Amino acid sequence: MKNNQTASNLPVHRYRPYNEQFAVNLTDRTWPSKRIEVAPRWCAVDLRDGNQALIDPMSPERKRIMFDLLVRIGYKEIEVGFPSASQTDFDFVRSLIDEKAIPDDVTIQVLTQAREPLIKRTYESIKGAKQAIVHLYNSTSVLQRDVVFRQDKQGIIDLALHGARTCRAMEATVPGTTVYYEYSPESFTGTELEFAVDIANQVIEIFEPTAERKVIINLPATVEMATPNVYADSIEWMSRHLAHRENVILSLHPHNDRGTAIAAAELGYLAGADRIEGCLFGNGERTGNVDLVALGVNMFTQGVDPQIDFSNIDEIKRTAEYCNQLPVPERSPWAGDLVFTAFSGSHQDAIKKGFEAMDAEAAAQGCTTNDLVWAVPYLPVDPKDLGRSYEAVIRVNSQSGKGGVAYLLKTDHSLDLPRKLQIEFSGVVQTKTDSEGGEVTSSQIWDIFNDEYLPASVKAPDAKWGRFELFSTRTSSDLAGHVDLAVDLRDGEDVANVTGRGNGPINAFLTVMVERGIQVTLFDYVEHALSAGGDALAAAYVELDVNGKRFWGVGIDEDISTASLKAVVSAVNRGVRSEVGDRELSVV
Amino acid sequence: MKNNQTASNLPVHRYRPYNEQFAVNLTDRTWPSKRIEVAPRWCAVDLRDGNQALIDPMSPERKRIMFDLLVRIGYKEIEVGFPSASQTDFDFVRSLIDEKAIPDDVTIQVLTQAREPLIKRTYESIKGAKQAIVHLYNSTSVLQRDVVFRQDKQGIIDLALHGARTCRAMEATVPGTTVYYEYSPESFTGTELEFAVDIANQVIEIFEPTAERKVIINLPATVEMATPNVYADSIEWMSRHLAHRENVILSLHPHNDRGTAIAAAELGYLAGADRIEGCLFGNGERTGNVDLVALGVNMFTQGVDPQIDFSNIDEIKRTAEYCNQLPVPERSPWAGDLVFTAFSGSHQDAIKKGFEAMDAEAAAQGCTTNDLVWAVPYLPVDPKDLGRSYEAVIRVNSQSGKGGVAYLLKTDHSLDLPRKLQIEFSGVVQTKTDSEGGEVTSSQIWDIFNDEYLPASVKAPDAKWGRFELFSTRTSSDLAGHVDLAVDLRDGEDVANVTGRGNGPINAFLTVMVERGIQVTLFDYVEHALSAGGDALAAAYVELDVNGKRFWGVGIDEDISTASLKAVVSAVNRGVRSEVGDRELSVV
Repeated sequence: MKNNQTASNLPVHRYRPYNEQFAVNLTDRTWPSKRIEVAPRWCAVDLRDGNQALIDPMSPERKRIMFDLLVRIGYKEIEVGFPSASQTDFDFVRSLIDEKAIPDDVTIQVLTQAREPLIKRTYESIKGAKQAIVHLYNSTSVLQRDVVFRQDKQGIIDLALHGARTCRAMEATVPGTTVYYEYSPESFTGTELEFAVDIANQVIEIFEPTAERKVIINLPATVEMATPNVYADSIEWMSRHLAHRENVILSLHPHNDRGTAIAAAELGYLAGADRIEGCLFGNGERTGNVDLVALGVNMFTQGVDPQIDFSNIDEIKRTAEYCNQLPVPERSPWAGDLVFTAFSGSHQDAIKKGFEAMDAEAAAQGCTTNDLVWAVPYLPVDPKDLGRSYEAVIRVNSQSGKGGVAYLLKTDHSLDLPRKLQIEFSGVVQTKTDSEGGEVTSSQIWDIFNDEYLPASVKAPDAKWGRFELFSTRTSSDLAGHVDLAVDLRDGEDVANVTGRGNGPINAFLTVMVERGIQVTLFDYVEHALSAGGDALAAAYVELDVNGKRFWGVGIDEDISTASLKAVVSAVNRGVRSEVGDRELSVV
Repeated sequence: MKNNQTASNLPVHRYRPYNEQFAVNLTDRTWPSKRIEVAPRWCAVDLRDGNQALIDPMSPERKRIMFDLLVRIGYKEIEVGFPSASQTDFDFVRSLIDEKAIPDDVTIQVLTQAREPLIKRTYESIKGAKQAIVHLYNSTSVLQRDVVFRQDKQGIIDLALHGARTCRAMEATVPGTTVYYEYSPESFTGTELEFAVDIANQVIEIFEPTAERKVIINLPATVEMATPNVYADSIEWMSRHLAHRENVILSLHPHNDRGTAIAAAELGYLAGADRIEGCLFGNGERTGNVDLVALGVNMFTQGVDPQIDFSNIDEIKRTAEYCNQLPVPERSPWAGDLVFTAFSGSHQDAIKKGFEAMDAEAAAQGCTTNDLVWAVPYLPVDPKDLGRSYEAVIRVNSQSGKGGVAYLLKTDHSLDLPRKLQIEFSGVVQTKTDSEGGEVTSSQIWDIFNDEYLPASVKAPDAKWGRFELFSTRTSSDLAGHVDLAVDLRDGEDVANVTGRGNGPINAFLTVMVERGIQVTLFDYVEHALSAGGDALAAAYVELDVNGKRFWGVGIDEDISTASLKAVVSAVNRGVRSEVGDRELSVV
């Protein structure tokens, strides 16, 4: 069986293998036989290294939302900015301190270059904090020494040592603050190991580490330059050669240029690191920093507590997407929209049998499946443990593979369904057609969609589908964040004019629903215009928790605000319908 | 420095570490000291394992586009479907053969379960092919044996052997086709190594491998269950224990549940594998298969020819996005929109110095930078080598961090710029304001945007900005894929009615441009409605190559088709303007 591959035209001669540039000789490495048995210290750098990489940097409001999220789920060391580099970063650090937003057990971290005026400004920013990590860095790589700093090794060492001494001198200016230190030989992966350990050890001496006041030595893969086992070798080598190792916290900061940052962090941790810096969902310059969510849930699925609360991974995702204004990809580990779906029939069958076996085992043991070790094929975690659910998606083709459900709704009806609603609706189509990946016409799909989400458009206007129906809406805003809503609403047989107040029309309308005994929480909201042509309709999609179960709702209207309220009615009616059964609509 | 992290409420007791389930004992492993020095055999499984994971599976047209792309860039083994599982897969395999779409040096691969009727159908599908790989699989994992198949080990072995014998017997039905074999003990990572090697070796005996007709043994991480070094250990162990090893091609098929599939493939390859199966950009069920683009470019940047042509990575990306109807994430290795951007001032400064040093070196050596080893900080590859370009993005804040350029255009003008246009426009704003990440008002940004992309809206209607101007458009379609376009077009001082034909209005209009001496190719096209309210405007964005340089253009109109033609004019005029200088507009 001949290998027919041939040479490409890529200019291979322009690139040199890592091992020809840097020697990492560690034939007696021990890390490949080790295992991860306890969580590392985490440091979340979303507010600095992540924020730095956004086309539109976070506003102060978004930064604060990110900070509060990181605190809430359990991060105790949070890099909050580079205060000497920009006024907005400085102001944000000050606001955290002045507004007493930092819990006593959380330590903020601030980045600074090893330059005197920047260090002084950094200390101004942390005044009044209970404690802070001052994170000092300078670039040590061969390339940056040659090209950027035009300094020899001693010049680079002097820069670092002068920075470290300036830090020590500045401690007196923040008497109420316990200052800890982190030093990064930046672009560590482009630095000779002997030089990296030399400069780190000299800086360590200046910081005088003790058991109570350890020094963090952070070894960034500023650019990921080799396979992750090479990074692990370099970490084990450094761990063996660092001075005062017992009082040093060895920290990793992997970037993801080669797509192996998660592996680099895990293998580097096996190799003796104590701490890992990264961002939620791998945000950061270029391909990003290592993904803290993936690292944490990876540990969880091995029975190791990450000490971070990932039980509502959708909320973490939604918040990160709001703050970063970047989507979390559909296939992002543990969190992507498509991660707990199964499309293949054989996978679905195996998963079904796995669930049945767990149910049978729980019944036999007289416990619930929550007490059992998780064991379902193709699902390496119970989606419920992360606040998600498993979806079997049976693709419904139309007219000989011309496209599936979502494609036809988009092509024929201009509806661009959110990914999770596509998954939900595929299940609805499957139930109603009982087809195993078979053929359904576009008009059948449209009828099913209407019947499920939009009954008012296909039935007579006075048809009573579901408990609630919207007749008219009025909103008024005081331009200070409050919206007053008045709607003519049918609830069962009664029509009444009811009012609600909120920070927007949806929010106001949810209060109306709560007053009527529906426990309802908003999970997701997406809207789009249907067309650019004559009839300017808008579609709104909401995902609600209705009395403990998740439902999507859809609304279409010329007015986007009305469309969103219709979507709420759609989701709530579907929730009520699922409780009382399809044909037993009753006024609860 | 106390570690303040505390236990989470995650149900850690439900998960067992991999090493407590499966023993992989290989203390004398050799892979960590090895290096990747030559490309593996690749097998692209986009058309089977990738397609299987799409909500809307590829239409036959899209499948063919994907197949042709894979062939064009150099893949020689391509899994084209699971023909016994669906009529559409069967028909697609037949169409490739009947339409003679498979080059002589390309081998198609078809998947089948180890069941007799499915195997027979599989052989029907490959009749007439010059050669084909029949890929036989059955699940061997402990969990699937217990829960899905309810068989002991011997039962599972019998299933595999019966399948393999059926394959051999069916060879006589395809006398014109050279049949090769691949066997996968599916869910290998959930299988005891001793059992995996036992079943593989028994199957190998039936396939009777020779040097000319080697057998592929594929070891899938169907679910990624441990750190990638453990997968590598298991591969090295298998490589040592497989029978007829010299006539076996050891293949990897890593999935990405833990986000470490790229690492698993690389370390598994170091551990003795010969071949890697994966998908472009990591498509596939759940978190996907290993990303073939990342693996290939990783090798390239180490001076190893991947034997796949990644010199136009944008075209590969665009085609995959079209076929899969899934976006390639912004931070996807080597290919994401944000991968060659630098936002940090210190990064930008270092990159600039790196370019300057390379220019100086080339001048000193009397060569071009294309002859030099690439060495620029923060850019592990020359973006040009992949058909991309480096962008320094200086974020322009407005009104104390209330948002950046893209945010303001969206908030204040409902324009949702594609990511790459956001980057281009940030550069334009930067040039016009000379501000270093400073403050610009929203109205300044809007004026700059208009002046750059939409001059007709701010100047008098008869103002002559750029070489071309559109006065009116008419299109007619024959409903058979042809659109005839007639436009009143100003070209310099002359206005004429000109016509063009294409598969759509943009395509037709590009032919008009080509006739007028503009070399123009379409790279990207995005459109959206501006609002759902009263004035139903649409915005269109196009990325064109204009006489060898890339430009975005923007068009806004009530008619989406007109908006897209305006966008073409905008991009072409910008291209012409860049050639002749800002104020020397001339009729070429």
